[in-house]
This record gives sequence, C-alpha cells and structure tokens, in this order.
Amino acid sequence: MTNPIETDVVIVGAGPVGLFAVFELGLYDLKCHLIDILDRPGGQCAELYPEKPIYDIPAWPEITGQALVDRLMEQIAPFKPEFHFNRMVAGFRRLDDGRFEVTTDEGELLVAKAVVIAAGGGSFQAKRPPVPGIENYEGQSVFYSVRRMEEFRDQDLLIVGGGDSALDWTLNLRSVAKSVTLVHRRPDFRAAPDSVNKMFALNETGDIRFQVGQVTGLSGADGQLTAATIKSPDGEIEIPCTRMLPFFGLTMKLGPIADWGLELNENLIKVDTEKFETNIPGVFAIGDINWYPGKLKLILSGFHEAALMTQAVKRLVSPGEKVVFQYTTSSTSLQKKLGVS
Amino acid sequence: MTNPIETDVVIVGAGPVGLFAVFELGLYDLKCHLIDILDRPGGQCAELYPEKPIYDIPAWPEITGQALVDRLMEQIAPFKPEFHFNRMVAGFRRLDDGRFEVTTDEGELLVAKAVVIAAGGGSFQAKRPPVPGIENYEGQSVFYSVRRMEEFRDQDLLIVGGGDSALDWTLNLRSVAKSVTLVHRRPDFRAAPDSVNKMFALNETGDIRFQVGQVTGLSGADGQLTAATIKSPDGEIEIPCTRMLPFFGLTMKLGPIADWGLELNENLIKVDTEKFETNIPGVFAIGDINWYPGKLKLILSGFHEAALMTQAVKRLVSPGEKVVFQYTTSSTSLQKKLGVS
Repeated sequence: MTNPIETDVVIVGAGPVGLFAVFELGLYDLKCHLIDILDRPGGQCAELYPEKPIYDIPAWPEITGQALVDRLMEQIAPFKPEFHFNRMVAGFRRLDDGRFEVTTDEGELLVAKAVVIAAGGGSFQAKRPPVPGIENYEGQSVFYSVRRMEEFRDQDLLIVGGGDSALDWTLNLRSVAKSVTLVHRRPDFRAAPDSVNKMFALNETGDIRFQVGQVTGLSGADGQLTAATIKSPDGEIEIPCTRMLPFFGLTMKLGPIADWGLELNENLIKVDTEKFETNIPGVFAIGDINWYPGKLKLILSGFHEAALMTQAVKRLVSPGEKVVFQYTTSSTSLQKKLGVS
Repeated sequence: MTNPIETDVVIVGAGPVGLFAVFELGLYDLKCHLIDILDRPGGQCAELYPEKPIYDIPAWPEITGQALVDRLMEQIAPFKPEFHFNRMVAGFRRLDDGRFEVTTDEGELLVAKAVVIAAGGGSFQAKRPPVPGIENYEGQSVFYSVRRMEEFRDQDLLIVGGGDSALDWTLNLRSVAKSVTLVHRRPDFRAAPDSVNKMFALNETGDIRFQVGQVTGLSGADGQLTAATIKSPDGEIEIPCTRMLPFFGLTMKLGPIADWGLELNENLIKVDTEKFETNIPGVFAIGDINWYPGKLKLILSGFHEAALMTQAVKRLVSPGEKVVFQYTTSSTSLQKKLGVS
C-alpha cells in the first residue's frame, strides 16, 4: 500500500460525464482524481463507438465519440485532473474524520472529501467462458487481459476466442511465450483480415498452433494450470498449457461498488434530483449509473447532474463558506481559473 | 384574427433552450412553432452577448453566444421549426378538446397540444423613464422601439437617452421626421464615438437639436403629445414634440405569462424534475424561467430539461402509444429523421 493521495474529490469513471464533472468542480477550486478500468479517458464513448457519430450533443449537430472526449479533455485541461487508468476501485470506507478512503486493485490509496460515481453502465469486465472450475485459476494462470507482456514469458500459452483481442495477442505474445495455441470454435474470425492471414501463416510454419474447438475442462492444482481439454471436430483432445487468456468480449457490471451499501433501483444507484447524492452522504452518482424519476441515459443529462452535484460538494468541502454562483461569460475570477483572462 | 395555425407544440422563447427543445421534440416527430419578442433566434445569448465567449457549454471549451445559436439552428434544421419573431404572447386559454389556444400581439392564433415556456429571464421590455403620466401616451405617441420608421414620418420627434439606440435612431429617423431633438442628462454618451461625432456635427448645422437635460413632464391630451418639459442646466424649458422615443435600456419581465395562473416561486415558474411540467397540465417550463430545488440557471440544465420534458409531451400527444427511447448513435430511424442515414 503506497502513501495516501489526499484530494478533494475522487471520481469513479472517466467517461464524458466524469470528465465534465472535473470542469464543474474545477470552477469551484475542487481538485479531482479519476479512476477508470480502461487505459484512457472516454468510457463507453471511446471504447464502444469512438468513430460513430453522435447527433444529440447540444450545439454539436454531429460529433464522434472520440471527438467528444477530445473536446472535453481540452475543456478540463486547466484543472489538471489526475487519472488512474487500468484500475478498479477495490476498497471503500468512511474515515473517522468524515472523509472517504478509496483503494484500487493496484494498491493505490486515495483519501477524499467526496466521492462521485460516474461509472456509466458499470465497469467493463471480461466475460467468463463457461468452463467448469475456471474461477479456481483466475488471477494465477487464467487472465482476461494483458497488463504486462512479461507475465507470459516462457509460458505455454492458450489463447481462446475469435475476435481482434484473441488474434492480436496471439501475434504479439509469441515473441515472449514458450508456445502459443489459439483455440476458436470455427476457422472464421471476427477480426482484421490481415491479422487472420498472419495467424494462419504462422500456423503453417509451426510458429503457433491453431486448433478448432471449445475448451470444456481445465487440469491443474492450486491455481496452477497444466492442461486444457478441448472438444474438437476430431473428438476430445488435451492441450498442455500453463497460462490461459480467454477473450469472450466485455460485459458491464456494477463491480465492487455494489458492496458499498448504496440504495439501488434495478442495478442503478438511487439519487435525489437536487444534489444527485446517494443514500450515503458525501457519495454522489451522476450519468448513466444513477436513477431518479424521469431519468434518461443521455450524456447531456449527466452534464446537468455534474453541475448540480458540484454545488452540493462545494458546500460539503467548504462548510460555512458562501457558495457564489457565477457565469464563465462574465466572471473574471472564473476566467482566470480557465486561463483565458 | 387570422386562421388558426394547428401544431403539436408552441414554444414561448427562441433562446438556446427553446431551440434545443425543437431537436428533442423533433426526434419524436413533434412539430414546433416558436414565438419570440426579439427579431431573431438566440434570446439573451444573441441579444446580450453575441460576441462574448461562453466557457461552460460541455465539449465547447470556448464558444460565443452567436456561434452557439448558429450551431443549434444547424442542429434543429431537419425538424423545420416555424418562428414567429417580434411577437409577444398575448392570450392563452385551454380549449374544450384539451388543446391550448395561444395568441400573439400581432394577431396570430396558434392551437397546440402542449405549450413549452422557454422564456429565459422573461421577455425583454424597455425600461419606462420616471416621467409622471407617461403611461397615458404609451402606444399612441410614446414608443420604446421602432418597428417601422414610417410611423415617425413628419413628426416632431423627441429622443431621450445616451446609448447606442438613442444615437442610432437620432441619426436614422431625421430622414423621415419633421424635426429631431435628442435629450440626454449630460453631453457624455455610452455609444459608438463615430455616432456621437456625427450627432454633434448635425447639431452644429441645425439638422437636429441636442439638449442637455431630463424630461420631467409631458403635455398633451387623449394620448396625443404636444410638448415635453425639460429640466436643463439653464432652467426649465419646453420642447414641442408629437412623438417621443425614450431609450433607457431593457429589463426582463415575465410579461403576460404572469396571468396564466402558473404557480410561481419568486417570479420563476415551479416545475417538477421528472417532466418539467407546471401546475397547469400540458404546460411545461424549461431553462432559466423555471424553478425546482437545486435549480441553476445554466444553459446545459435547460438542455437536460428539454429532453425529459419531451418524453412527457410525447405521452400527452400520443396517449396509449409506447414511447420508445432510442439513441441517435445507433437508431437508423432517428438518423433518417435527422437526414443523415
């Protein structure tokens, strides 16, 4: 556990709504740290439809998901937000002084006066393939993403799946792994044709092995994998392996936030419409993850929620201080913070 | 009274929030007519700060009031809204069939299934100068704006004020008026120096007359002005005149809407946060003119309110029909309406 990072606000989720919250909080001198499971800002916008146009962002007749994120990053730059990417929130507790301690699965410890959940549809998590007992190997010899290639050095690697992730890692990890076997239920792939061609060529030369089939069982002990059983067109076969990487797509889950004691409505966090505060005072929820009567999962609604939440957070962080509402068009004090005056 | 215009929704106010409401309602096939007292779209944005940058429109690090309005006009163009500019709402009543009849001060009659008030700070209205009995002349020989220059042909015109409007009309109306006298309390002006120089030059040549002083009284009968009493540095003087144009700036007033029976909170219209509906079912209020706990007068909040209001209006207009919520990013049906698919 590293030294705690002290800040005003921890924002869980760096999608468009989490990003715009940095702007609204920044206007009130509130410093933000953001935690996101992805490796870059933008959430679903950047992950699911970076190139797809969105037509309902006000005053943007057409903008792609990535362009929206880029413009938001530019807008919040004056407030110097700090990002913790490739991280999941692990622990959460209220300290005796009223602040919150938030830990990540990589061991960071953040202490904040308020927590804002802007986690969209939840955290992107890898889908677990239906292999009996697979959970006993997860985190030791079965992984759903590659954080560091070195972790696969000199291993007998089994990669499962037919999409871009499976193909890309088959091509990339063969340089460090002892052996690489790719398993997919049929010889057709939903991946870039170039990658597929390269993979078939490497299979021809024996540099990797491609096997049509489905993983039906795992062998090993104490979390250490030794082999996988594959149901193939030629019958059941056994493939020796010490690491497995299944790529079965992503799913959205509320994740560890579900254990915080938040009042939910069908997996969404209930908030009021004045402060967008949850049933835990000091913990707010904005964007697609919250629920209130009339709620629409629109990015523009999350922007509004961020603005109203900010008023409540400012009052919480600076008790007794009068919160003055000003306009960026006319306030030189706000313009100084934005670096335009 | 002309034939009634039948439509789905009448929007009172064509500022940014009224404009974006056209977009949200348009996605649900609801046709809009907008009424605004100004002569063009944009409301305060276009009237008070067309050239001033705004910094808090999400995903627009910087945008002028006019550019914001231009982008919104572009965004709503596919829905072909119909504008009634230079109009004030005059009458309002519910018809027996549940629809609303809205009339303008220019005699149009609109019949709509729902009314959306997006009137911002209210309607811009000229400030009345503190001259006893002035109200007896208003509309007959005292006017606060120039709708048609012809109305001042061959009149002895008294213009009062020291800003751009007073100077500009002094210079422009002298071509039609019989005589023009400009009265201002001191020889300093808050107007374009070029206009001020031109006015002083015309005063030298006798083409107009400039008098330092303040109007303290009016003479005339039955609304017909004959002279104004001026308190000048040289004592009280009388200036013969048949028309007066005081330019003392604009103020924002709720206007005739105040008589509709709407529940107010300090001159703002109370709404719920689910539908943004007023106490009159079928009448909605969005943007700066409404109030609910936590309300902030931010353009981005009006955008959110427009989206949620739309769901309620659609249910009202199409009772029994299932209202399907779709995304512009993925729905080809919405993309067809937007003309991009």
